[in-house]
This record gives sequence, structure tokens and C-alpha cells, in this order.
Amino acid sequence: MRAKSGSEAGAKTAGATFMEQALEQARAAAARGEVPIGAVIVKDGRVLATGRNRTREGNDPTAHAEIVAIRAACAALGDERLPGCDLYVTLEPCAMCAAAISFARIRRLYYGATDPKGGGVEHGGRFYAQATCHHAPEVYSGIGEVEAGEMLRAFFRERR
Amino acid sequence: MRAKSGSEAGAKTAGATFMEQALEQARAAAARGEVPIGAVIVKDGRVLATGRNRTREGNDPTAHAEIVAIRAACAALGDERLPGCDLYVTLEPCAMCAAAISFARIRRLYYGATDPKGGGVEHGGRFYAQATCHHAPEVYSGIGEVEAGEMLRAFFRERR
Repeated sequence: MRAKSGSEAGAKTAGATFMEQALEQARAAAARGEVPIGAVIVKDGRVLATGRNRTREGNDPTAHAEIVAIRAACAALGDERLPGCDLYVTLEPCAMCAAAISFARIRRLYYGATDPKGGGVEHGGRFYAQATCHHAPEVYSGIGEVEAGEMLRAFFRERR
Repeated sequence: MRAKSGSEAGAKTAGATFMEQALEQARAAAARGEVPIGAVIVKDGRVLATGRNRTREGNDPTAHAEIVAIRAACAALGDERLPGCDLYVTLEPCAMCAAAISFARIRRLYYGATDPKGGGVEHGGRFYAQATCHHAPEVYSGIGEVEAGEMLRAFFRERR
């Protein structure tokens, strides 16, 4: 599930900019001792909401970057669905976030590094491939994966 | 995944009482026009937190009964994990909630009706059976399933 090239070159450039903003959120999480994962939600070419992992700060196991961003975007729009919105996140979403992205009707999902240990898009239950999934976003991965992955490895290296 | 009988008769009786409180939450959701699903979290034999589905009211696609209850329980304890806590919910958790229950380290999961269309425990990606799941609760189902199922069918019958 790599981003397409050529005809989507323009979209890729914009996508890299949005992923850079997601990486910025991941760095902000790391600075607070949180697992460094960040997300942004984009509508009509503009950032609608951002999110960083804050499970410790918030004493909330559901406060993954994607969930934080989705809740903020829904609050901003006053709607429980986000059609036409795209989500950029630095790591492959887990099962919880993959399903939340589906429920929010996110149009396109872009993520950086893959997560063989905890991912739920191309690993584990592969939510979007299940009959129990009623909306699957278009999925593109690999944008910013080197920096996203290195940030996570550095974080866990320091703590183990 | 039925609740065991015999030696767990006492636990079943207590469980039925807690599931009745989850059903009460589901009825409260229905009264507000929300999909009727309710949950309670129990620690040391006492209700620590309750939750009802409030996705519409909160403009929040993540506000399923289980997530609402988990966030409330974590806030009550000031912890992002709930070891030793049991969760009762009227319907089989979806992929999002199944993963959140795992992340919160819930000890035992009791649910009422199964959900072939959207469940994530015994349907779809079966999160607890995946290598990407790092904590699986003990799972018991079928308690209060008749009332839970009928409440959901009545809700959708009125709206279709």
C-alpha cells in the first residue's frame, strides 16, 4: 500500500507537508514523555485538527494521536462524521484507531511507518478488509516513514 | 464463549446484576435517540464507572459505551490502565472497543448480544486472537442477550 507516483506527484508534495506536521506532533509527544506518534486531519487542503499521543498525560488509554485528532475535528465541525477529510498519522493505526477512522468516514488515510507489532491496517485483524467494516478509507503508506520509525525506535531504546 | 456454569454460579448472579445496570444505560441511550448500548466497569465488586453510547449527543464517533466507561474509570482512578477491573456491555464490542478494552488491561469482559455485523471479538478481525493483541481479557457472553438484542432491534426497526 504505497502512495501512487507520477499523476499524484502534486498530492504527494502536499501530503509530505501534512505528514511533516504530523511528525511535529509526534516530536511534541516525545518531549512530554509520550510515545511519539502524531496526526493531522485535513479538509479542503487545510489542517482542521491535530493530535498527539497523550495516554499518560490524560490517563486515557484511548488517547492515541488519531483519536485525539478525530475528536477535535468532529468538535470543530459539530458532526460525528468527517467525510471529505483526510488523516495523516506517523505510524500505522492500531485496531482501535483503524476502526475509529472508519466510523468517522475519513476519506483517505496516509501513514508513515508500518507497525508489525500493533498495527491494525496491514497487520493483525486488518480491519478494512473485514465484512464488519462498513467504510474503508483509501490507504497510502510510507510517507515520512524513516523519520517516524527512527523517532519511535529512539524513544523505546531510551526506556529499555 | 458462554459464561461458565456451576462453580461460577455466584459470579453469574452478580454478573446479571451488573449487566442489568448496563442495560439501564442502554435504555438511557435509547431515550436520547442514541443507539441503545450501555456498559459498566466493576472493581472489587462495585461499579466504578458507567457509559452509554453518545456518539450523536457528543458529535464523537468514538463515544461508544465502552470507551465512555473506560475513560470515566481511568479518570476516577487517575490511571491509564484498569487491571482487576471487569467490563459489562450489552453488545459484543466492535474492533475499536475490543482494542481499547485490551489497552486498558480490563480483566474480564462480559457482553450480552453478539454482533455479526459489527463485532470485533468473535467476528471480523477477532482482536483478542491476533498476535498484535498484547492483553486479552477473559471473555463471557450471553448474559442479558435477549433484552439487549430486542432493544437494538426495536431501535433500528423504528428508524428504517
